[in-house]
Amino acid sequence: MTTPTAFQDLIPHNHCFGCGPLNEKGLQIKSYWGKDNESICIFHPSPHHSAGPLKYLNGGIIATIMDCHCVCTAMAKAYQMAGRPIGEGEQLWYATGGLEVTYKKPVAIDKAVTLTAVITEVKEKKMIITCDLISNDEICVTAKVVVVKVPPGWFE
Amino acid sequence: MTTPTAFQDLIPHNHCFGCGPLNEKGLQIKSYWGKDNESICIFHPSPHHSAGPLKYLNGGIIATIMDCHCVCTAMAKAYQMAGRPIGEGEQLWYATGGLEVTYKKPVAIDKAVTLTAVITEVKEKKMIITCDLISNDEICVTAKVVVVKVPPGWFE
Repeated sequence: MTTPTAFQDLIPHNHCFGCGPLNEKGLQIKSYWGKDNESICIFHPSPHHSAGPLKYLNGGIIATIMDCHCVCTAMAKAYQMAGRPIGEGEQLWYATGGLEVTYKKPVAIDKAVTLTAVITEVKEKKMIITCDLISNDEICVTAKVVVVKVPPGWFE
Repeated sequence: MTTPTAFQDLIPHNHCFGCGPLNEKGLQIKSYWGKDNESICIFHPSPHHSAGPLKYLNGGIIATIMDCHCVCTAMAKAYQMAGRPIGEGEQLWYATGGLEVTYKKPVAIDKAVTLTAVITEVKEKKMIITCDLISNDEICVTAKVVVVKVPPGWFE
């Protein structure tokens, strides 16, 4: 069995603070396909990703990783629909149009968090993706992300 | 005329990645009252706050600064309603319950962004705040933040 490569390590030219392998000071999240068309990301917070209290993960960092995980899932899906491996051939870029995050419980900073995402609506130019953040076996945060296709000039 | 002190420099014990003066690796935004009950924050992005393309500001960083600016505005309002200067007497803490961000236009990373926030609904335990992000004289992003009061144990 081969180890899968993260979506982010197949998408070229990515300097994103949340998910860009080229951003040395970024969060560098990694996303993979899981079972039942879910995508999965496991993130290990650093101490400076705290909320006001040092014990909790910051809500903005939470929004950032959920957003990036969903956008990268959309890009992976777009390549899948195009019948090509991620990053091969004509580049396909997506960006966030809207982000809704509901914070149900505080998230501990000293534990890894798991994100699971499901694409609930797929069109070529727009996808809607829902995402759960699980910490300590509980869903602590939910998100809905509207992801829109952007022209190749996005990266020029 | 005295220079006003930012909300964040009056709120004690704040290690938040977005707004905590005690977080050396954080964004350290500063918020002030403006005219007509608006609150204002001017943020200068760093190069590693990029989106995928280096020329744009990351959507997660945008969500983080809008969220923190609104939560700190809620705390400033709570102290105002209690008839006390920010940070004095019994501590009043608020946290984000829900965050909705609509990205209308890409935001240039090489320009300061201005956030303006207005409290549209005020109860003692819950406030709703809307926020605009202005860059290059245009509203590029809008947000609605539901802020809820949290017990003093939040910081224990």
